[in-house]
Amino acid sequence: IKAGLPVLHGYFRSSCSWRVRIGKSSFALKGIEYDQVAVNLIKDGGQQLAVIQYIDETRPGPRLLPADPKARAQVRMISDLIASGIQPLQNLAVLQKIGAEKLLWAQHFINRGFQALEPILKQTAGKYCVGNEISMADICLAPQVYNAERFKVDVGQYPTIKRLNETLVEIEAFKLSHPSHQPDTPADLQA
Amino acid sequence: IKAGLPVLHGYFRSSCSWRVRIGKSSFALKGIEYDQVAVNLIKDGGQQLAVIQYIDETRPGPRLLPADPKARAQVRMISDLIASGIQPLQNLAVLQKIGAEKLLWAQHFINRGFQALEPILKQTAGKYCVGNEISMADICLAPQVYNAERFKVDVGQYPTIKRLNETLVEIEAFKLSHPSHQPDTPADLQA
Repeated sequence: IKAGLPVLHGYFRSSCSWRVRIGKSSFALKGIEYDQVAVNLIKDGGQQLAVIQYIDETRPGPRLLPADPKARAQVRMISDLIASGIQPLQNLAVLQKIGAEKLLWAQHFINRGFQALEPILKQTAGKYCVGNEISMADICLAPQVYNAERFKVDVGQYPTIKRLNETLVEIEAFKLSHPSHQPDTPADLQA
Repeated sequence: IKAGLPVLHGYFRSSCSWRVRIGKSSFALKGIEYDQVAVNLIKDGGQQLAVIQYIDETRPGPRLLPADPKARAQVRMISDLIASGIQPLQNLAVLQKIGAEKLLWAQHFINRGFQALEPILKQTAGKYCVGNEISMADICLAPQVYNAERFKVDVGQYPTIKRLNETLVEIEAFKLSHPSHQPDTPADLQA
């Protein structure tokens, strides 16, 4: 840890940490440094959407929330569906409390969420989740698909989700931030 | 149901529905009608924060997200902590799967969330969650405290949360939208 540089708290396999890393990579590519508010937001429990929207509103460069109000609402709806409707139900703290049944539990809630998400994305998606510009929704989607795969959900049931994810994981900011490439990734999980 | 009027799907006791009703009451007081995008957002799975932010960005009147970027980030952080970090873990679908242990489960995750929320609110709160203007964070807080009370969490452990909630439940938009005053509230739960 270098003195004076913000510390990004995280865990290689956490989809929340990955969301923040994708955001961070995107902003790093634009030459933007984090400020103290962003770091505090990250420290105070990983409220990733707040961090992403804060940086989006205060810094120049490509928007992670589109300018058009309807498209913005779609981005937020998709992001919320993942960040409130799926991810919290399969995070580490919950699965630890569930115990032996945790794989079935995670599959149940991811499938339930993807069944709601697939028809929405079918309507909103272009190359990315909402139209042809990358957005906060894409930052939420790829880590959630990674989790689905970890929990052996058949993502092929959701053709739009599958197709979008295949596009996203080829993007440099998503690759660099992938759980298989982090300083704390165990050797056997490195890609 | 009157022909041509948007239908608000909801359930009297759902804290998600209550969030939307508070937003709706606030906007109703300002004489603003919902449009089709807002109605679709509500129908597509209750993505309440997306609805609230959409209306806030497209309509005149008092802001539910403050103009100052730091205050906006604080509002979103608090809202996300509740809407992603607490509510999803104690909603109906999860508790139905938990079965007999559901009261202890709900208490565990509400206490865990309130322990994270209390010190944040201690720093950000004035009369309301963030300073002295009502915001989306307040719309998230009051329904979550109502849920905490339903699950017999001792809210007195969290003096800032308790004090803010006491202020909020006296506000007309929160009173009118309260679960005890809805068309589908059973007689024995009406206030």
